[in-house]
Amino acid sequence: MSESALAGEAAALDAADELRAKRAEFVLDDAVYLDGNSLGALPRAVPARLSDVVEREWGRLRIRSWDESAWWTAPERVGDRIGRLIGAAPGQVVVGDSTSVNVFKAVVAAVRSVPGGGRDRDEVLVDAATFPTDGYIAESAARMTGCRIRAVPAAELAGAAGPHTAVALVNHVDYRTGRLHDLPGTTAAVRAAGARVVWDLCHSAGALPVELDAHGVDFAVGCTYKYLNGGPGAPAFLYVRRDLQPRFDSPLPGWNSHADPFGMSPAYRPADGAVRGRVGTPEILSLLALDAALDVWDGVDLAAVRAKSLALTDFFLRCVAAYAPGAVTPVTPAAHGERGSQVSLRTASGDGRETVAELVRRGVVGDFRPPDLLRFGFAPLYVGFADTERAARLLAEAVGA
Amino acid sequence: MSESALAGEAAALDAADELRAKRAEFVLDDAVYLDGNSLGALPRAVPARLSDVVEREWGRLRIRSWDESAWWTAPERVGDRIGRLIGAAPGQVVVGDSTSVNVFKAVVAAVRSVPGGGRDRDEVLVDAATFPTDGYIAESAARMTGCRIRAVPAAELAGAAGPHTAVALVNHVDYRTGRLHDLPGTTAAVRAAGARVVWDLCHSAGALPVELDAHGVDFAVGCTYKYLNGGPGAPAFLYVRRDLQPRFDSPLPGWNSHADPFGMSPAYRPADGAVRGRVGTPEILSLLALDAALDVWDGVDLAAVRAKSLALTDFFLRCVAAYAPGAVTPVTPAAHGERGSQVSLRTASGDGRETVAELVRRGVVGDFRPPDLLRFGFAPLYVGFADTERAARLLAEAVGA
Repeated sequence: MSESALAGEAAALDAADELRAKRAEFVLDDAVYLDGNSLGALPRAVPARLSDVVEREWGRLRIRSWDESAWWTAPERVGDRIGRLIGAAPGQVVVGDSTSVNVFKAVVAAVRSVPGGGRDRDEVLVDAATFPTDGYIAESAARMTGCRIRAVPAAELAGAAGPHTAVALVNHVDYRTGRLHDLPGTTAAVRAAGARVVWDLCHSAGALPVELDAHGVDFAVGCTYKYLNGGPGAPAFLYVRRDLQPRFDSPLPGWNSHADPFGMSPAYRPADGAVRGRVGTPEILSLLALDAALDVWDGVDLAAVRAKSLALTDFFLRCVAAYAPGAVTPVTPAAHGERGSQVSLRTASGDGRETVAELVRRGVVGDFRPPDLLRFGFAPLYVGFADTERAARLLAEAVGA
Repeated sequence: MSESALAGEAAALDAADELRAKRAEFVLDDAVYLDGNSLGALPRAVPARLSDVVEREWGRLRIRSWDESAWWTAPERVGDRIGRLIGAAPGQVVVGDSTSVNVFKAVVAAVRSVPGGGRDRDEVLVDAATFPTDGYIAESAARMTGCRIRAVPAAELAGAAGPHTAVALVNHVDYRTGRLHDLPGTTAAVRAAGARVVWDLCHSAGALPVELDAHGVDFAVGCTYKYLNGGPGAPAFLYVRRDLQPRFDSPLPGWNSHADPFGMSPAYRPADGAVRGRVGTPEILSLLALDAALDVWDGVDLAAVRAKSLALTDFFLRCVAAYAPGAVTPVTPAAHGERGSQVSLRTASGDGRETVAELVRRGVVGDFRPPDLLRFGFAPLYVGFADTERAARLLAEAVGA
């Protein structure tokens, strides 16, 4: 198919895109930004809201804002907003700390919540291709709960969980390849083996429907600065299924998780509910920037996001095949059921890092992950089909196809 | 002494105050704000700097800012700025996470760093009057390292540390009473017993000279939203003395503490230096608001801050004694060497919570800590002597003296 035919198709797809009005809610420029799987673009509502938080809530109300501006309850309130996007009914998600810290809470609490955890059940299964921090933190959690780590490919975790497994920690979408793992099947198998499962949703929250409650997930964590556009280092979230909350025995029982935090009692008594996942004082400026950023999701149907995401990545793969035949090899699965919202390509020759740098110079922002992957993330709220065609065209130029 | 005499003395003290120009660097109003020991006032430089971070660094540069705007190295860079204020040479302080999370890192790493920690040395001493979160977290750290907790009054910790002590966790200033504990003496005694000491500087950083290096402190943590004015929930800091850094074995070995974080290796290899105390991606908006807030400290001598702090609290105690004789009892020590930068008063009768609310209505912001304490924090960079005299006068009215 020719460039003009694909460009024409892109225009038609953009015209028919039911999410296209969302694009105006973001600050964008002439570049094609395909790195929203690393840092989401800035929603236009954020600067004014954050200025108000700084100048009025902090600057004028000061300490009164903990109550009057509802700072104190923001972790649960923002958690519930994220809950809607990941299929969690209210009261099960709390926002705060980094993904790494939340992985620690979830894995330790998972081991402690399972009968025999750390004794008969002393195995922590981790996705062998995990984003590194999950593996490092799981290792620490295992060391501190009398467990040992076993790394297993995500697709084999369902079969690997057995009578000695305490918990399995899995990435919903592989950060390198963009492969979407089987959350319903793996969850069911791990639970059937008597173990707990912790899902890392960093690359799926805001990119596709997750449905934690529907699939009986035990625990989940995720970041909010990728497809949720919460800003650099925006606080992560922790999901604890409602019926596990009374058994959630946090390794980080900070005062914000106390049943009566301002009672200042020397004895720890955990709060009920998702609040039990809190630790110390939340970083309010980052948290409320995220709160403002989540406004872009009002009224958005995740099914429409998923449909557009798949259409975008399908179209990108077609354009790449047409413009740069043989120059790059898709690593992301072709099957829709196995694909997240990114496309990873391996270059047939040359230095991938340099290709990404050249693409940035030409106006397409993707990124590079060692040893040889070019990653392109497609955030359906602000990436369009013309962007996608252009990115493929410039990629072909950059690799000399 | 009469009201007019004290008011006249206040005017003279303000006129002679070498820090008085600093006040203009903060957003203040007609109220007397004596709650800077809970949430510091807003430095005027913050809003414009944070707008630039949001609109240009995030909004326009996006992912490039991790490098081009030096986001990646901000935890160490801001850490060094705080280091100057707590007597730590560069390379020993890192900013990120909450105080609670940093207490966990420090106590666990302290136990692991001491020979026999968790075995022969299985005792974690905690300040019996500690801010609650330190005690809760120390309990968790003890549980996870094979130790047990023993609560001892801070003044007795030096004598309590013995051959079974792994670590002592102490608050530099008691959050209730404002009592300043003996950092040099306690540190020397705990170290002489072969144990480690972790100081919580929440109520001393930015309030008085701390001198961690000079006194051979092992570890320290602290928040940045009180006297350092970093904003609501601003990230906390962790100090690890340089010679202990190679033995700093973090319970939260997130990818940001890896020697080669973008190598994405499945094997954890800790970075050298203070970076080893990092965990996950830092909450950049909160962190860079803190960075901007620290500009008010440029050129400020901590000795001058301390001198003014003591003059303010001395003057407040005199005014209170003159205006409300017998109505309130100071709980904060009279001796300068035992006083932080706050004054806590116990009311002879009535409900302290209601007294604080009435004072707020009259234009003096302090706070209440159960069971019966009125707390007034004196931030020397923006509280003056006329404020102090007025606060005492309105307090006398509020308690009906």
